[in-house]
Amino acid sequence: MNSFGRIFRLHIFGESHGTHVGICLDGVPPGIYLTQTDFDADIERRKPQAVGTTKRKEKDVPIILSGVFNNYTTGAPLTIVFTNEQHNASDYHNMTYHYRPGHSDFTTHVKYKGYNDFRGGGHFSGRLTLPIVAAGVVAKKIIKPIEISAKITSIGGTTTDFEDIIQSVVNENDSIGGIVQCVVSNVPVGLGEPFFDSLESLLAHAMFSIPGIKGIEFGSGFKLATMKGSEANDCFINEQGKTKTNHSGGIIGGISSGNDITFSVVVKPPSSIGKTQFSYHWATKKIEALTITGRHDACIALRVPIVVEALTACVLADCMLIQKSCG
Amino acid sequence: MNSFGRIFRLHIFGESHGTHVGICLDGVPPGIYLTQTDFDADIERRKPQAVGTTKRKEKDVPIILSGVFNNYTTGAPLTIVFTNEQHNASDYHNMTYHYRPGHSDFTTHVKYKGYNDFRGGGHFSGRLTLPIVAAGVVAKKIIKPIEISAKITSIGGTTTDFEDIIQSVVNENDSIGGIVQCVVSNVPVGLGEPFFDSLESLLAHAMFSIPGIKGIEFGSGFKLATMKGSEANDCFINEQGKTKTNHSGGIIGGISSGNDITFSVVVKPPSSIGKTQFSYHWATKKIEALTITGRHDACIALRVPIVVEALTACVLADCMLIQKSCG
Amino acid sequence: MNSFGRIFRLHIFGESHGTHVGICLDGVPPGIYLTQTDFDADIERRKPQAVGTTKRKEKDVPIILSGVFNNYTTGAPLTIVFTNEQHNASDYHNMTYHYRPGHSDFTTHVKYKGYNDFRGGGHFSGRLTLPIVAAGVVAKKIIKPIEISAKITSIGGTTTDFEDIIQSVVNENDSIGGIVQCVVSNVPVGLGEPFFDSLESLLAHAMFSIPGIKGIEFGSGFKLATMKGSEANDCFINEQGKTKTNHSGGIIGGISSGNDITFSVVVKPPSSIGKTQFSYHWATKKIEALTITGRHDACIALRVPIVVEALTACVLADCMLIQKSCG
Amino acid sequence: MNSFGRIFRLHIFGESHGTHVGICLDGVPPGIYLTQTDFDADIERRKPQAVGTTKRKEKDVPIILSGVFNNYTTGAPLTIVFTNEQHNASDYHNMTYHYRPGHSDFTTHVKYKGYNDFRGGGHFSGRLTLPIVAAGVVAKKIIKPIEISAKITSIGGTTTDFEDIIQSVVNENDSIGGIVQCVVSNVPVGLGEPFFDSLESLLAHAMFSIPGIKGIEFGSGFKLATMKGSEANDCFINEQGKTKTNHSGGIIGGISSGNDITFSVVVKPPSSIGKTQFSYHWATKKIEALTITGRHDACIALRVPIVVEALTACVLADCMLIQKSCG
Repeated sequence: MNSFGRIFRLHIFGESHGTHVGICLDGVPPGIYLTQTDFDADIERRKPQAVGTTKRKEKDVPIILSGVFNNYTTGAPLTIVFTNEQHNASDYHNMTYHYRPGHSDFTTHVKYKGYNDFRGGGHFSGRLTLPIVAAGVVAKKIIKPIEISAKITSIGGTTTDFEDIIQSVVNENDSIGGIVQCVVSNVPVGLGEPFFDSLESLLAHAMFSIPGIKGIEFGSGFKLATMKGSEANDCFINEQGKTKTNHSGGIIGGISSGNDITFSVVVKPPSSIGKTQFSYHWATKKIEALTITGRHDACIALRVPIVVEALTACVLADCMLIQKSCG
Repeated sequence: MNSFGRIFRLHIFGESHGTHVGICLDGVPPGIYLTQTDFDADIERRKPQAVGTTKRKEKDVPIILSGVFNNYTTGAPLTIVFTNEQHNASDYHNMTYHYRPGHSDFTTHVKYKGYNDFRGGGHFSGRLTLPIVAAGVVAKKIIKPIEISAKITSIGGTTTDFEDIIQSVVNENDSIGGIVQCVVSNVPVGLGEPFFDSLESLLAHAMFSIPGIKGIEFGSGFKLATMKGSEANDCFINEQGKTKTNHSGGIIGGISSGNDITFSVVVKPPSSIGKTQFSYHWATKKIEALTITGRHDACIALRVPIVVEALTACVLADCMLIQKSCG
Repeated sequence: MNSFGRIFRLHIFGESHGTHVGICLDGVPPGIYLTQTDFDADIERRKPQAVGTTKRKEKDVPIILSGVFNNYTTGAPLTIVFTNEQHNASDYHNMTYHYRPGHSDFTTHVKYKGYNDFRGGGHFSGRLTLPIVAAGVVAKKIIKPIEISAKITSIGGTTTDFEDIIQSVVNENDSIGGIVQCVVSNVPVGLGEPFFDSLESLLAHAMFSIPGIKGIEFGSGFKLATMKGSEANDCFINEQGKTKTNHSGGIIGGISSGNDITFSVVVKPPSSIGKTQFSYHWATKKIEALTITGRHDACIALRVPIVVEALTACVLADCMLIQKSCG
Repeated sequence: MNSFGRIFRLHIFGESHGTHVGICLDGVPPGIYLTQTDFDADIERRKPQAVGTTKRKEKDVPIILSGVFNNYTTGAPLTIVFTNEQHNASDYHNMTYHYRPGHSDFTTHVKYKGYNDFRGGGHFSGRLTLPIVAAGVVAKKIIKPIEISAKITSIGGTTTDFEDIIQSVVNENDSIGGIVQCVVSNVPVGLGEPFFDSLESLLAHAMFSIPGIKGIEFGSGFKLATMKGSEANDCFINEQGKTKTNHSGGIIGGISSGNDITFSVVVKPPSSIGKTQFSYHWATKKIEALTITGRHDACIALRVPIVVEALTACVLADCMLIQKSCG
């Protein structure tokens, strides 16, 4: 479904090469001060800026259609849309027979019986993360004083000096994957609703909606497979529940423990590469060479941190509102 | 929340040391042949059998309270309960002041203001995975001919011959983590509903409800961070969309591609260990030695595969019913 | 679906002639004092007592399977079941070909392809209102000091002295309809979430799940069709929003106004009557005489008030928890 | 909440005097032919045309933001917005202290702590029924060959020749209520999901979201309170389940029986009347005379039939998609 959340709810819509992308936020508490400039910083962070990011340039001005009155949220649905200005649909003419490897062309064509808007990935485009960033701006105001910070921790296996490796794959018309880590501080104890809505479940659910994410781990994550309980247990050291270590990533029993929430996600290398690939052609019924043209990110991981922050904020806003209702 | 799913829905209830654990399944199609013996094999697989699993022994007989008539599902809610026969609550007397490290004692005490049933983890116990296994039995019938197989791939970092390492942590009164891999075959193309209900989102949401799971990766997972697009892209080789490699784990754009779905989850070492730990004591307001007695699993990963299978089946059943409605 | 509510959620299950009926309540706040005797008064009110009510007698003892610990709710799902002791399935042998007029036999047979448990109406039986009454007991504790009172206002068109008219239809082996009115006092201003979850929408949704309800009106209801705005408008008379009249039934713009919530529901005459009817027979393919035997209510309206109260309490509990989260 | 539906879902947004009103439809099957002109007829029917309807004139052109590609639905969210061109906010200056009787001013002010957009009723305005009519256009295409027809059956108690009574209340600066009846034909057997999602529950839930609706009755409705079972029972007369009478309004046991679905709703007289009223003034703390100026409908019932049709279509579309998934 294109909705997420229980009290604070996101309804997303739009396509990469349609007229607009947007989001309708329901369950926004009334009385939150909100102006268009509040969105500037986060939207700027999402824009392609470095080497390795697409040359598609959009103004990305948020247009608030509803839910704000005299610069305050009203409690009614808050809808934000963005205009798609730079369409370049001619790049996409041959993909209905020669589906791009690793790309959603094939699965969406089958699922939607050929009616999906295939241009630029349509509804499955990374462009949809723009309204998510806008939603995050609203959510961050709800969850104050919780602070969220996501950043790249490795690209192509390198944990420092990413620029060289990216320039190298750009030169090869290739792409590269990476890892983004998120740290959340000032978290109250008690967020998350097990059994099925553990904080890990909700955060993972949200993260895997970001195109290209293929894994997530909390705290020490996959390293926990090699650890003993006596090593992995985070011993409490004070009355507030602060722990000496934080292997659990701030979530115990699916509920926030008050320690920093930490998790990492892996972002796959973008599927759209200029380098020639050999893949089945549905018209010729043969495996044929395929070279993808157009504007693409060589390392989409670079643009993911602000999206991770936004969705983390949305999940926590929802959990805080739920907790308020039951607490 | 204690519900999961959109059409095929699970509503779970019960506590480790209450009288029952159970599950109410809604959205079960009518006309599925179902008898008590159908549950035997999967419930047996969940039972503690090997070294490193708890000595708590339960009969685990599924009692069907509703939704089955003359051995066929009726379309009405299907409720299954299990009796808890072996209570041993005296083991848990001191945990309200000296919360066990890594355990949900502290977070649940705060979240539920001290009213939670703390005995044996209460509603947060691994015992709740028993009704989930029962739900999986029903789901597996719905998704035929899809086949699901989960198994341990490593324990304590060892990928072969786990028994020694487990015996060793048992001897030390310690515990150990592990990794469980799941492979799903015979999957139709088209399952999953992006934007927010990608197949990865749904599977991850479900997996992180299993106590002790701290990470999940699909296909090549975290290795994708080190790969180039030209390496990671799965090139199509035939009309059905079969791919030469399967780095994407059978899910592209959040939708099943018809290739095997593959994912791995990490299971942390159980928090309840006999080995002495030092943790804050809320009554004495000092860090004190804590030794946990009682029956526990030294390696809960051993018991997780059937639970992973069950929840995978539930997710896929839900997606198939959704897809039928829109297809 | 067999679920209702957003924060305070009901999941109902069971069949008239299965082993149990029950309900799983999720979203119950922790710390509510609750014992088995709390259920006595409301369950007693639901029992058939007067002339015109069925002779089926059940003990109706609530068995709490989960969610209560040391007599307080824990915040985990609260599941309550009731044993069905008096089965008398032999009364129902011929209905698979000769569907009872006005009864769910035909529609459920088609919808569930013949797999539904048809005995006594199965999952569609009025017996399912028993767990609803139990849910209402819990909800009433959540919504204090709100008071709910439902009562019969007319039977067969008579607003006084119902006993004669009921005895008369009993003598004729017939049945009779009636009207139940509900008044809710001490309601805070602000409950209800338009646009789609107006308080009228939620209450109506709940009421129409009660078997036999075919209409609902709030405040002056259908009389409003004959009124002018100058007559129907409830003028405010004090700072708390109290109004001189209450034609709106305490709900304005879908939101509680603080005035008494008032609504009435019509309960149709029970379909199962001893009097001979002529209806199509699916085996003989002719219209044939049908005489229904068995234990039935001649005036189910008599047993509806406590069910109306229970569902009203559930709706208000849900709205109060939602309002707490956003307020 | 501002969402409705389970598979076919409506997310509504906008305010009377904001820049836009709109709706996001999720769960729309791919491949439905849809162009802007498809909306013309139903939008035209909603426009104020007769005496007794507001003089506010809007172009009401549907702008499709997403979900349609090459004139076919794509399966992605379908968002439709309308521009509000005629704002006249100066009419609404005094209502924050002198709340209009019968109007949502007071309840929304309290619920949203004064942050709601009060101009023209804001999010609670009848203007929100415009995107609902648009949703209905899409839904009607999904449910073919089901036919829905709603019409006025009485105004001010008169069942014929409404024009005189309306002109009379217009002359008095007053308003008048009415009744709208809806008939649905070509309905398949089996729609509706009891226990809580009976077809009556879903239709009533939807209808009570229309501003001004205060009652609903199915089939013979409130008259059933005066009827005996032998009179009210609809006897089957053929193999398809056609019944001799239709007192149940085509819904038995909460499930469509294949007979025409019939129901009526009562529409209260509009609250905004030019005639002087006396109501409490929150600033002067006295009951004061209040005269409402501005453009208003004297008989909003006249504009309700197309809205009733639209929401009926949405409910049936949702039920049909659900039924497809389980059938």
